[in-house]
Amino acid sequence: MTTHTVQTVFNSGMAFTSDINGHKVLMDTTADDGGDDSGPSPKRMMLASLAGCTGMDIVSILNKMKVAFSDFSIEVHASLTNEFPKIYNYVKITYKIKLAEEDKTKMAKAVNLSQEKYCGVSAMFRAFAKMDTEIDFL
Amino acid sequence: MTTHTVQTVFNSGMAFTSDINGHKVLMDTTADDGGDDSGPSPKRMMLASLAGCTGMDIVSILNKMKVAFSDFSIEVHASLTNEFPKIYNYVKITYKIKLAEEDKTKMAKAVNLSQEKYCGVSAMFRAFAKMDTEIDFL
Repeated sequence: MTTHTVQTVFNSGMAFTSDINGHKVLMDTTADDGGDDSGPSPKRMMLASLAGCTGMDIVSILNKMKVAFSDFSIEVHASLTNEFPKIYNYVKITYKIKLAEEDKTKMAKAVNLSQEKYCGVSAMFRAFAKMDTEIDFL
Repeated sequence: MTTHTVQTVFNSGMAFTSDINGHKVLMDTTADDGGDDSGPSPKRMMLASLAGCTGMDIVSILNKMKVAFSDFSIEVHASLTNEFPKIYNYVKITYKIKLAEEDKTKMAKAVNLSQEKYCGVSAMFRAFAKMDTEIDFL
């Protein structure tokens, strides 16, 4: 069984620093919630986790398929519930990528493989949110 | 309805950079998965989100209760499933904190309020993982 451990230390104000597999990440919140906006907000950081997870899948799959691509980016757009605890109940992932016309179906296949088989973060999100994906070919 | 948007750009190798409410966070993976380990792994970053979310609740609640504290940190320990997609199916949050003997029940109350009412990230985790919490009074 694989386990992951993350240590997070309170700094001051509302700021915390996490040690994530040896890399430090600062988190904070805005002045409205008593913070200094010195780092990303924890909840929004989950959306970056989602993009990173599925993004790495796509790169890995396209590389295996010998598909050349450029200008790859991912936009994650999420809606929060109004009541506490506020959770993301709808998430849309837009993959933006430039590749040859004949490789577009391979990109669609890579997205499906990531969403349906490999991306653990997407699978976790699907437990609490409705998820949509789209591909924007540049 | 509140919405959050995070933009994430592919750099090279397996590295991506997210822009999270104006703050850049680099993500990467280890050499085993074709990366350069230049930043935290996306999945583990979810555990930092969890710690930051509940940690900010605790600080906010203790401040409102006029409870003095020091040496506050949070350890998140999580188990992954063996099959793809690999998800966290068990998560233990250990809150470590130093405060006066008479304030220990207030800390316990703060943890309960965060877990049961305020922390959206904890609520999202509860949709896919068994969750335990403990407080380690230093």
